Amino acid sequence: MSEQQENVIYVGTKPAVKYAAAVAAEFENGASEVFLKARGRAISRAVDAAEITVNRFLEGVEVKDIKISTEELENRNVSSIEILLSKV
Amino acid sequence: MSEQQENVIYVGTKPAVKYAAAVAAEFENGASEVFLKARGRAISRAVDAAEITVNRFLEGVEVKDIKISTEELENRNVSSIEILLSKV
Repeated sequence: MSEQQENVIYVGTKPAVKYAAAVAAEFENGASEVFLKARGRAISRAVDAAEITVNRFLEGVEVKDIKISTEELENRNVSSIEILLSKV
Repeated sequence: MSEQQENVIYVGTKPAVKYAAAVAAEFENGASEVFLKARGRAISRAVDAAEITVNRFLEGVEVKDIKISTEELENRNVSSIEILLSKV
């Protein structure tokens, strides 16, 4: 048991429902908080995954916090998002 | 003067820098808060626009709040985002 462990799902190019399922699995394995993280165009998909998780897959889980930032990747700036999902 | 007026920039398919410029213009015209709103794939562009506004265009403006939700459009669900930018 490692309650301090950070549970992070990185969102890429798969369908959003796959990431929502991965988030649901983390909560079902006992996580109390799960982060969805994405960069660039995958940001929209991370939002989709969060909405699918909260509205369709899991009861008692809410969007607790959303942060956006800019990362430098290969000398260009890329926006990123972190969506924190938490048990109510 | 209508201080209660809601200043909203809707993000579509133009380059993110155009929306960042529109946000900057709202602040320069006296707004204390501006919303960036987007749906679907434009969500990533709204995040880009917010980051460009805060990091490159304007000093003393911060991301104050971010909300995501789901809207029903033509019988399908579409994710949406609202990014609230505010003078510090």
